[in-house]
Amino acid sequence: MPSYQAPLRDLRFVMDELLDYPAHYARLPNGEDASPDIVAAILEEGGRFAREVLLPLNQSGDQEGCVLEGGEVKAPQGFREAYQQYVEGGWPSLAADPAQGGQGLPHSLAMVLSEMICATNLAWGMYPGLSHGAADALRHHGTDEQQATYLTKLVEGIWTGTMCLTEPHCGTDLGLIKTRAVPAENEAYSITGTKIFISAGEHDLAENIVHLVLAKLPDAPEGSKGISLFVVPKFMPDAEGNPGERNGVSCGSLEHKMGIHGNATCVMNFDNATGYLVGPPNKGLACMFTMMNAARLGVGIQGLGLTEASYQNSLAYARDRLQMRALSGPQAPEKPADPIIVHPDVRRMLLTQKAFAEGGRMLVLYAAQMLDVVEHGKPGEERERAETLLGLLTPIVKAFLTEAGFEATNEGVQVFGGHGFIQEWGMEQLVRDSRITRLYEGTTGIQALDLLGRKVLMSQGETLKVFTKEIHKFCKAEEANAELAEFTQPLAKLIAEWGELTMGVGMKAMQDREEVGGASVDYLMYSGYVTLAYLFARAAKQAMATLADGAEDPAFYEAKVNTARFYYQRLLPRTRAHAQMIQAGAGSLMALTSEDFGLGFEV
Amino acid sequence: MPSYQAPLRDLRFVMDELLDYPAHYARLPNGEDASPDIVAAILEEGGRFAREVLLPLNQSGDQEGCVLEGGEVKAPQGFREAYQQYVEGGWPSLAADPAQGGQGLPHSLAMVLSEMICATNLAWGMYPGLSHGAADALRHHGTDEQQATYLTKLVEGIWTGTMCLTEPHCGTDLGLIKTRAVPAENEAYSITGTKIFISAGEHDLAENIVHLVLAKLPDAPEGSKGISLFVVPKFMPDAEGNPGERNGVSCGSLEHKMGIHGNATCVMNFDNATGYLVGPPNKGLACMFTMMNAARLGVGIQGLGLTEASYQNSLAYARDRLQMRALSGPQAPEKPADPIIVHPDVRRMLLTQKAFAEGGRMLVLYAAQMLDVVEHGKPGEERERAETLLGLLTPIVKAFLTEAGFEATNEGVQVFGGHGFIQEWGMEQLVRDSRITRLYEGTTGIQALDLLGRKVLMSQGETLKVFTKEIHKFCKAEEANAELAEFTQPLAKLIAEWGELTMGVGMKAMQDREEVGGASVDYLMYSGYVTLAYLFARAAKQAMATLADGAEDPAFYEAKVNTARFYYQRLLPRTRAHAQMIQAGAGSLMALTSEDFGLGFEV
Repeated sequence: MPSYQAPLRDLRFVMDELLDYPAHYARLPNGEDASPDIVAAILEEGGRFAREVLLPLNQSGDQEGCVLEGGEVKAPQGFREAYQQYVEGGWPSLAADPAQGGQGLPHSLAMVLSEMICATNLAWGMYPGLSHGAADALRHHGTDEQQATYLTKLVEGIWTGTMCLTEPHCGTDLGLIKTRAVPAENEAYSITGTKIFISAGEHDLAENIVHLVLAKLPDAPEGSKGISLFVVPKFMPDAEGNPGERNGVSCGSLEHKMGIHGNATCVMNFDNATGYLVGPPNKGLACMFTMMNAARLGVGIQGLGLTEASYQNSLAYARDRLQMRALSGPQAPEKPADPIIVHPDVRRMLLTQKAFAEGGRMLVLYAAQMLDVVEHGKPGEERERAETLLGLLTPIVKAFLTEAGFEATNEGVQVFGGHGFIQEWGMEQLVRDSRITRLYEGTTGIQALDLLGRKVLMSQGETLKVFTKEIHKFCKAEEANAELAEFTQPLAKLIAEWGELTMGVGMKAMQDREEVGGASVDYLMYSGYVTLAYLFARAAKQAMATLADGAEDPAFYEAKVNTARFYYQRLLPRTRAHAQMIQAGAGSLMALTSEDFGLGFEV
Repeated sequence: MPSYQAPLRDLRFVMDELLDYPAHYARLPNGEDASPDIVAAILEEGGRFAREVLLPLNQSGDQEGCVLEGGEVKAPQGFREAYQQYVEGGWPSLAADPAQGGQGLPHSLAMVLSEMICATNLAWGMYPGLSHGAADALRHHGTDEQQATYLTKLVEGIWTGTMCLTEPHCGTDLGLIKTRAVPAENEAYSITGTKIFISAGEHDLAENIVHLVLAKLPDAPEGSKGISLFVVPKFMPDAEGNPGERNGVSCGSLEHKMGIHGNATCVMNFDNATGYLVGPPNKGLACMFTMMNAARLGVGIQGLGLTEASYQNSLAYARDRLQMRALSGPQAPEKPADPIIVHPDVRRMLLTQKAFAEGGRMLVLYAAQMLDVVEHGKPGEERERAETLLGLLTPIVKAFLTEAGFEATNEGVQVFGGHGFIQEWGMEQLVRDSRITRLYEGTTGIQALDLLGRKVLMSQGETLKVFTKEIHKFCKAEEANAELAEFTQPLAKLIAEWGELTMGVGMKAMQDREEVGGASVDYLMYSGYVTLAYLFARAAKQAMATLADGAEDPAFYEAKVNTARFYYQRLLPRTRAHAQMIQAGAGSLMALTSEDFGLGFEV
């Protein structure tokens, strides 16, 4: 069975040494309870919950899947009990507002715990996972009454939430939705339509489910400007606020999926269901983005968690499995063969996972600091800067870390050889589970358009400059640091190139808008590699400094420097390919007609 | 349900126009029956069999899987009947020696059909797929009596074959096997041991199964020099050569796998099973390589087939699915949204699959010509050259086309968005099925060591030069062809660089053998991209020439040139990354101790 240990030592390095979380928390109005001791205790306890409660249910949940019977969905065995423990432990409310039943700790802390949940049981994690987004939407856009009715229940995890966006004929293009909301009595609406791909749309973990549903009012304008957001509970709250009468929303069927079998992905039928408008009419898309941005960061963290899980288990296998002798001669002569970790290509696969895990963790925690500031920082320049940077980084976190996660889980399988393909080992499940992360909450292609089109080009590159200036400053400050030059010199070049590539696409796009789409995914991947390069350079600097000061555990810091070196030498060169592909332009993409594509096989 | 049409037009281009198969067949001693008309008829009929018989069983086979009951394995519904049709149609014996019941057609033709089988039902294709290798081993190394007993039955498909190599504790490192063969009466051996991952080890498709088994004789030397090959039938042939008494070999269990559910992957228990030595004692590994090389080419073709399947189905979806408007304005204003094929990034994903399918097909058919010559050409310089080139290309075909196949099937899923994750569409099955191709018959890492270590460096680079000289000659001959310069100029540079990179690794490897393993996978991928670049340059030349001559269907040739252009502009730049990573060396891979790898999470 797969194993897991929360990466507490690495977290301590990133939070305490690299990003100075203690000072960051000290400056936050809601950070006073997040003292280093408390944080350490929470992370340790969270790691234990993930390992002891969630991990043992991961493979069984995958094999059992969910069952729909008489309109009710049964989650796999043990999921309900694990969820009760989760609620009793107070985990759902960790970072929520005390006014709404929360514990008021910084959001970043919840994100770290989320990595642990995703590393041990992604399918389970998707049940509470969407409640945050639903709560966010109600917190930002709900009426006082809606907040009073739903928010505390969601925050405490007594009820769970969903996001009902997608319909059979539309996912990305929500302007096409057909679900209708007709005004009814008492400011209610009667909602009718079909939603698909609704994660945790129906289940037996919590006593009620709060659906946030996109629908169109009768007089709505065409397209995405005519979408409104509604809250639709599974059970109508009674006078005491407890689940009362069943509402007209039900699960029509469960999807059979490649992975996350333990999560119920539902077709939800709304049949004159009673709902209430959240936010202004026809402004549903903006409200939805409140959920969406949180969800996108969350999916990036899923990629990170799966990367760590894959790394830890393929490392254990590589140390254990004996096969062939090292090319340079036997390393374990007393054994019938050497453990495969001696082989350079096995090490390459392990280090790829290690670098993506540690790099991804730095990126998430770097973005999480900004989220803390956006949520709780004082209005002003610092918060604006955090908002800008977080907007830029969100599509990178989402798409780059899920692409990296898929690569990492596949490298994990590859380390296992043929055994990786066998379910028993649990490695192929990580690949199947991670496959969805590149798709949901906006595919990699959609994230790439958000990054290059909306965030970078629409701001005339200003948003990007906020970030590259920071990196430039770092390189400049370390110019005299010869030991760090192997990192800062290539990084400085990349920063300059990033600007030039952006300008190049921007110029072309003025002639032809298709150039944006033609460059976008390569641009996103390029941006992701450079972003991680920046964080690895900082990590190397920090590690070198600690070593120079006489570290207590020098091996940890030496390994950190070497992982940064591996990243620069064996992963970062991929920017050479992406840069060239960005510059190649969209010409070869757009030349063929739709018919031309089929000429090799269509008769 | 997924659809499939055999890519007959593209095959005609590659076989008739690009690689001049008619002349190639005319020169082969066994090529006289392979007239263009006959070839066309066979391919058309093969495509129909794949589409009408195999494709409808692909999804149902995946869902049903195989069942082991009372020691007998039931393949999914319809598999047995499809196999009977396959045998009745004479497909198994197409390229086999007429002396052994074969039809004597060139091997290359069977490889083309294999693409169609793999594109429509890989799990089914694995039942007959290993019979060829078993027959090859007996043909090359079996006694007259063994050939008389087994070969015709295998060739005609009345019986099927297996390759029993792997054991629980060893796959790559076959020197560690524990299965024992003890001499018994009448030149027989009594074989005892456990083999795992045996594809089609037990099933109900054919009346008998012929296992080719690696085992150790009592006095065998240690390691891979002490392995012998045995033939072990499931039922002992009786006096008439029909299945008689049950032999001591049985299926202990079926593996639960990520994909190819329709194929029975068996744990096979040999319990004093009667077997006969094939080839000389202790020379089993050499005999096994006879099977292995054929199997490796076969797995490369699996990668190609899955690429084509993914391409055709994601193309159909991209034409059908309406979502968003083109960035440059509505393309289908009469519809509620544009078909997603208008979007540049969707086109990038489709063209990536198209380029890998068409490039992979050229590579397979280029290698297949060499196999024809190796198998049937006159002894002499031409055959030696074919042997050398085929040896070089085999690990590239195997590893590059399966890596490309995995990428392609994932791009196929990505085109479908969230729907790609749903089993109903059949796209996620292609990903799961293709995942094994990177692992079995030697992982990508093993292929890479074979290419760089055994094929290239052990020959002091001479083997590579045979190939690069051909490419160099092509570039030289087209130097004045300005229209082709966009291909030949970068290609000429790559050829020079390929030599330099090889020399560089070779020099480093003289100091430290680990440098070979550190560079190998990047070297293999680099080699694959350059090899396809060569074939795309030739394809572009051919297409341009045909266009200049006034082609009947110019759109096909224009699309071919554009696909070559896309390949050069949007895939070939990956060589920039691989070249840099090769040059980076193994240093950052070898620095960490085994313990260092775990310092971030182990306590």
